[in-house]
This record gives sequence, C-alpha cells and structure tokens, in this order.
Amino acid sequence: MRVDRIGEFGLIERLKKSIKTDSSVIKGSGDDCAVIKFNQDQYLLFTCDTIVEGVDFRRQDMPYLVGRKALAASISDIAACGGIPRYALLSLAIPKNISVHTIDKISQGIFNLAKRYNINIVGGDISRAKQLMIDISMLGAVEKKYLALRSGAKKGDIIFVTGKLGGSILRKHLEFTPRLKEARFLVKNFRVHSMIDISDSLTQDLGQILKASKVGAIIYEGLIPLSKDALSLADALYTGEDFELLFTLGHNEAKRLYAKRPKAFRPIGEIMDRRYNLILVDKKGKGKIIKPRGFQHF
Amino acid sequence: MRVDRIGEFGLIERLKKSIKTDSSVIKGSGDDCAVIKFNQDQYLLFTCDTIVEGVDFRRQDMPYLVGRKALAASISDIAACGGIPRYALLSLAIPKNISVHTIDKISQGIFNLAKRYNINIVGGDISRAKQLMIDISMLGAVEKKYLALRSGAKKGDIIFVTGKLGGSILRKHLEFTPRLKEARFLVKNFRVHSMIDISDSLTQDLGQILKASKVGAIIYEGLIPLSKDALSLADALYTGEDFELLFTLGHNEAKRLYAKRPKAFRPIGEIMDRRYNLILVDKKGKGKIIKPRGFQHF
Repeated sequence: MRVDRIGEFGLIERLKKSIKTDSSVIKGSGDDCAVIKFNQDQYLLFTCDTIVEGVDFRRQDMPYLVGRKALAASISDIAACGGIPRYALLSLAIPKNISVHTIDKISQGIFNLAKRYNINIVGGDISRAKQLMIDISMLGAVEKKYLALRSGAKKGDIIFVTGKLGGSILRKHLEFTPRLKEARFLVKNFRVHSMIDISDSLTQDLGQILKASKVGAIIYEGLIPLSKDALSLADALYTGEDFELLFTLGHNEAKRLYAKRPKAFRPIGEIMDRRYNLILVDKKGKGKIIKPRGFQHF
Repeated sequence: MRVDRIGEFGLIERLKKSIKTDSSVIKGSGDDCAVIKFNQDQYLLFTCDTIVEGVDFRRQDMPYLVGRKALAASISDIAACGGIPRYALLSLAIPKNISVHTIDKISQGIFNLAKRYNINIVGGDISRAKQLMIDISMLGAVEKKYLALRSGAKKGDIIFVTGKLGGSILRKHLEFTPRLKEARFLVKNFRVHSMIDISDSLTQDLGQILKASKVGAIIYEGLIPLSKDALSLADALYTGEDFELLFTLGHNEAKRLYAKRPKAFRPIGEIMDRRYNLILVDKKGKGKIIKPRGFQHF
C-alpha cells in the first residue's frame, strides 16, 4: 500500500504508535512543539518544520521570502505554545544548479528575521537534492505557567483568531508575521485554555484542538474574519498557511479580552460538548455539521 | 554562479558569515554540535543531520538500516562532543509512491535505535517530496567539564581513532555503531583535547581539527587501521562514512590510554606546529604533505 493511500494524518498516527517517552517529556508529538522539562520555572520547546519546493513554495518565488517563511513557520509553532524562540538549526537541501545568489537571498531572509526575533542560528547542515528544501529546527523556552497546548479547551470557552483568514496562498504565506507578540500578550495576561497556529486550515486546526481536548465546537460564518485574498468562506475554512493563532478562553477571560482588544482578537465561536462535533452556523442562523478539512501532504 | 562552483564548504563559509550569536551560545556553527548554556553543570548540545536518497543511501537499501543510519549519524555528533543524546525530532520528506511498509521499516530502524540509547523521539514533521529524505534534529547534554570540541588540539598531542577506516560505503555506513560508549569512557577518564566524528573522511575531518585548533599534524601510514572493505590506503584517507571518532590527547594521557586500551583506541599520529600542515609518512618513513579531501555534497 502506498503512503498516499493512508494520507498524512494516517501516517502520523502510525508513527506515533511507536513513541514512548520518559518522564522528562511533558508533551511529545501531537502539539505544535515538544515540551521538555528544563528548570524550575521553564520548559524547553522543541520543534521542526520543513518547507519543500513545489509544495510550500515555487522556484519562482522570491528566495528572500522563502527563507523568511521557513523560519517564520517555526516561530509560529513556538508562539502557539506560548513560548519564546531562542535557537535554530538550518538544514538546507539544495539542487546543484541553484545559484549562489539564490542561496544568499534565502539566508538573508532567514538571518534578518532571526535578528528581529533575537533567535540564534547556531548551525546546520547542507545536502544535495533534486528539490530545494529548508528544514528549521528550533529551541525555545516557556514559563511553566504560560504553556499553552491544544488539549486544554473547555466547554463554554470562546474561540478566537488573531487575524483574517483565507486566500493566504496568494501572498500571505510568504509574508506573514508570526504572532509571537500576540501570543506572549495572551499568555501573560489571560488564562489561555488552548492554542494552535493555523497552518493547515481553520477547520483542520480547530479539529486538532477539539480532538486533543475531547470537545466539540460551534463557529459562526458571520464572525469569521475574511482576508481580502479569500475568494469565499470556503477559503477561510479549508485552505492553509494563514499562520494566525487560534485559541480559546473561558467566558470571563474572553469578555475581558474583548473589552481590551476588540479588533486584534476576533471571537468566532464557542467550545461545546463533544457530541456536537463541529457546527458551522450560516448568516441566516442555520447550523450544520462540517468536517475538518485542509492541507495534507498526501 | 551555481552552488556547485563554490562547493559545500564554500557555501558553509558564506552562510557562517551571517551568524551572530549571543552570550548564551558557547559554540555556534563549526563543530559537531551547537553548544548552549543550560545549567550550572551542563551544556545543551543541539545538532541536525539529513540523509538523502541517492546521496546517503539508495532506494534499494534496507529501509530499516536507512532509518537506523539517520539516527545513528546524529548520535555520533553528540558523542563527538562528549555528551549524551536525549531528544530527537524526525522530519520525513517522502515521495508519494513509497509504500507504507517501507515507512514502517524506516521508523522501526529509528525507534529501535532510539530505545537502545534512551533517546526520546518527541515529534516531527512529514512532507511530500521527490526524494526520500530523513532529517533528525537532536538535543543532548554534556557535563561542562566533559565537553570536547574540534578546537582544543595542542602541539605534541597524540592523534587516535576508535576503529578501522575505509570502504565504509560498502556496508558500514548503514550498520555502524555510534561510538557513544567510547566517547563517554574517554571524556570521563581522560582530558580529551579535541574530538570529531569521521563522517567526510579521515583527512577531511582531521583537517577540521587542524583548522579549528590552528595546528598541523603528522600521520603514519603504517598506523592507520584499515578496514577489510578498504581497497587501499586512499579509501581510509579520503572516503567518508566511517563514523569513528578521531581525537587527540596530551602525551601523558595518551600513554595512559594506550596502556589501558591498546586495541580499542589506535594512535595514528601526532599534532604538530601549524607550519607542518598535514604530513603523511609512508611505510618507508618518507613524509609528504597531503591535502585534506573527502566527501562533499557539491
């Protein structure tokens, strides 16, 4: 049986079965980062993210932005756990006919963003390959009390997003600002019950929160902030690469956030009992169950 | 200008120019691992290593051994710094026509070796690609007093290797045992001045020690332990993937090691002043300067 028959998530489930970790691992696979015991106050966050030519970017995209995206995607993962990115390793797989200029631009994109976020690039690895590929592994830290996972959503929580969704494949996927500032504001000032970054799609990643937290949700079409590049609601629900944060707060915390920052964080729905699955309410107030769907590599 | 014109090391030098790290980074790029401040007694070690189909292994190689090799190469990097591997992330780039069975075998190779070395696989990433690629990022720890780098070799040091060299492409590159036990024995019982793992070739990796330590060396043809698969001395000098450790000890420490373990660790030469470059003495006692040479991706 070929891997494209069982799909990316099928493959991940299969690999996860072999995973056994010791007591120093707070959270292994199944969240935006691995969470590892570090010291009295903090956990280590450990994550990696690969972008591949022809899948996550095209050869004709600006190399500076391609490099930038590779690092930004990992920063977004650290942000989704409430932490601060600190160190990164850079694995490059490079076709031999690529120009030195292209590699220079890619590395500028990486190093400039690293500088802006005070991330130390501490080494890496170069290989020859048929496709250009950039793999970033990143280490960060998070105060224990600020750790945010996918698994903490509770019935009655309000679901928020940090920005507009949909159509990101046109432009935003290469230019997005990882929501680190927003994530730190949230974990420092609110009790964040669950958080994830939207990389695969709103419904797919909300589905991850629902699965990890064993809950359902209801979201409102009229509340979902559509980006200018989104052609339709479906773009916001089912396409990836928005790199906004999706998070949930208890009711009172949600009211407090909404009073403080009504524009930066948009409520889009509510966490429900598991048996509701995922319900989308249209602008006429009619609800229907929808299936999480989004980008999959296979 | 294409990247294959400036070569792998040219490219690495170019990328390294952009690197600026803060005071928490003891050693950034340019060693087997990045070395990062951790706690009072220990440093963190952070490394990544990619293996690519058609370069580091062939599609017809046993998938179990391919997976095993990916993890073993990173363990070898941690060993070369004197540390203990602890956590790993697994990035897989997979062609869609590969069978689930192949991926199962690759992951078995990884997970079985991880278990043997008490390494926690804490997550990873799956992408679709034209070539199979496995990238392992690894976190380890080393007691400050045991840290071994490439840069500490001193004039008069004796140069040792942990095993036989050459011809590894035939078999050993897929079956080698990372020299973790040997590395820990060495750093715990001896003052190791410098250490590296031989991945590119004896002369190439010795060249890295010489460059980092600003010294020269003399090695003796008659002392270089040839593997059965080596066709000639050139195989031992210039071909890669031996994954043995190459290290240097001061004269008295070297005598003590040789008295204790004459077979496990073989002396092959001596560190000299920088102006000697790298000298190979043949079996008739005649010396000539040789150039470090070995595997390069470009």
